[in-house]
Amino acid sequence: MADGIKFVHIGLGPMGANICKLACQKEGFELVGAIEKVNLGQDAGEVIKVGKKLGVPLSDDLDAALALNPDIAVHSTLSSLEQVKDQLITIIRAGVNIVSTCEELSYPWETQTAIANELDTLAKENNVTLLGTGVNPGFCMDTFPIVATGICQEVRHIRVARIQDARSRRLPFQKKIGAGCTPKEFEELKQAGSLRHVGLEESTNMVAAAMGWKIDEYCETIDPIMTEENEVSSKYMTVKPGQAVGVEQIAIGKMKGEEVIRMEFRAYLGAPESYDAVYITGTPDMEVVTKDGIHGDIATASVTVNAIPRVINALAGLLTMKDLPPVHAYAGDWNRLINN
Amino acid sequence: MADGIKFVHIGLGPMGANICKLACQKEGFELVGAIEKVNLGQDAGEVIKVGKKLGVPLSDDLDAALALNPDIAVHSTLSSLEQVKDQLITIIRAGVNIVSTCEELSYPWETQTAIANELDTLAKENNVTLLGTGVNPGFCMDTFPIVATGICQEVRHIRVARIQDARSRRLPFQKKIGAGCTPKEFEELKQAGSLRHVGLEESTNMVAAAMGWKIDEYCETIDPIMTEENEVSSKYMTVKPGQAVGVEQIAIGKMKGEEVIRMEFRAYLGAPESYDAVYITGTPDMEVVTKDGIHGDIATASVTVNAIPRVINALAGLLTMKDLPPVHAYAGDWNRLINN
Repeated sequence: MADGIKFVHIGLGPMGANICKLACQKEGFELVGAIEKVNLGQDAGEVIKVGKKLGVPLSDDLDAALALNPDIAVHSTLSSLEQVKDQLITIIRAGVNIVSTCEELSYPWETQTAIANELDTLAKENNVTLLGTGVNPGFCMDTFPIVATGICQEVRHIRVARIQDARSRRLPFQKKIGAGCTPKEFEELKQAGSLRHVGLEESTNMVAAAMGWKIDEYCETIDPIMTEENEVSSKYMTVKPGQAVGVEQIAIGKMKGEEVIRMEFRAYLGAPESYDAVYITGTPDMEVVTKDGIHGDIATASVTVNAIPRVINALAGLLTMKDLPPVHAYAGDWNRLINN
Repeated sequence: MADGIKFVHIGLGPMGANICKLACQKEGFELVGAIEKVNLGQDAGEVIKVGKKLGVPLSDDLDAALALNPDIAVHSTLSSLEQVKDQLITIIRAGVNIVSTCEELSYPWETQTAIANELDTLAKENNVTLLGTGVNPGFCMDTFPIVATGICQEVRHIRVARIQDARSRRLPFQKKIGAGCTPKEFEELKQAGSLRHVGLEESTNMVAAAMGWKIDEYCETIDPIMTEENEVSSKYMTVKPGQAVGVEQIAIGKMKGEEVIRMEFRAYLGAPESYDAVYITGTPDMEVVTKDGIHGDIATASVTVNAIPRVINALAGLLTMKDLPPVHAYAGDWNRLINN
């Protein structure tokens, strides 16, 4: 790999473009294929706004891209493992490592056991490594609390809270969390499934697996956070009393009737502050707060790119973030991180 | 390993006893040897206060203990790698994995390059893994900030602060940090070397290596923190104006003249609060605060025991915490964590 880490990027939507751009800006990466369903023929450099053409036109021919023998495929399309499974299998059969932002791939061992086993077996047969990652799931509600328990003698309960004031976010995000909805509209969005953040169950299962806990009861709730007495305004909207300012999604994992994991995700207009927090009840108790919270888009692009050398160097199989050495930032030539 | 993880413990001073006790309280560990220079013949269970005899008498015969073919040696004696090197070599030659709290072993690649290379080569020849760990160095000023950078696109500076109010600590700790000393007495303690916390340089080098930074200038200062206008009291002493309440040790790593890493350790009577904090300047900036700080003794025992399965499962060689998958708490039968 004297010329750099050759990678194919699959899925250049807003998130995929961020990831691809970040990799292209690092020393030691070389984009050799860009797979999309739209904008075919357009130069990838223009699509990801890297300021120059890269000589890689968007294409829908995955097989041709894989035939270029890349070191890794960076995959950023859908949240549903069922929906991306066939594509992952194609890549694995071509003998190419994968890092994917598919939320359900981050820890599929409990929720999608059959697919997880199939992908793991196939990855081992083809000597490739497969990882699902991102900020959430993948970091702030699973990997980070797991790492924090490293200094605990004993852990009895883990609560993770991710609280975001949505006032400074883009309008599509504010709409996505149901801001401005009446209770009825909110309920309709909820039933349509578009309010649900995918990943809390995967994070719960990853944490439980690390702790040696068998979750025998899992429940997840999604509710509106309503305005209190006063209006709440963002740059884009004013939410009146009786309307939702955002969403609260809570996941609870129990073991023998007792809650051991609690994940709280709240995104709403007017949260007093944004933060990510890990609360461990054990010996010792711990409270770890990331002030101002972890920026979702930047963090997902970063952790995905930062994971690439770890994935290329890892043993074959379906891995999760708890199986890999720390994924971290790096300032040098990334190709030097690869074991030959 | 159907009967559990067989381990030999070397060094049952206060810290070693804590570690050994914690391992013995976990399911899946079996102490097969306890090496000391003192209290020879006394049962290890009594020395580590585990509430029962373990049938393992303290012995100074390391070779005999290693001949029992343990899965790992837990080593907790001295801070100086030079001083423990021969003992480590004996263990490695016996084909036994090692986890050690020797501070200088936590990242010896820059400060003790020759010894690091020698141990690494020997470990690979004997197919064993060697790790130095602990809370500091080993976790709060190196591994934890390295993990935090996983969600950063770019990192330009890392500052880590470990601030401890020593009022609630034991008298030996308060004396160790120079509380109650006049400036002259403090200077004498400093010259004698007993004030210095060992590990800041190792942590600096580990963080730099992860980030791909080449530290070309390193300096470390140790200064008294003096009382201001008023007396400060702990349960054990009252410190008058003009005396030291504790110590401040600061390490700075520079690259091409510019500071890129700053480690601040302050332990003194009357600190407004205890906390551990990581401040990353980059994209994004990050501030991660562990409230009330990380308890040194509990954390070192925990991380050392929690690292054992990772060390046993790892590839051979001298590893550091940044090379291992997350070391974390676990509630089940530890023997099940071992790859066979």
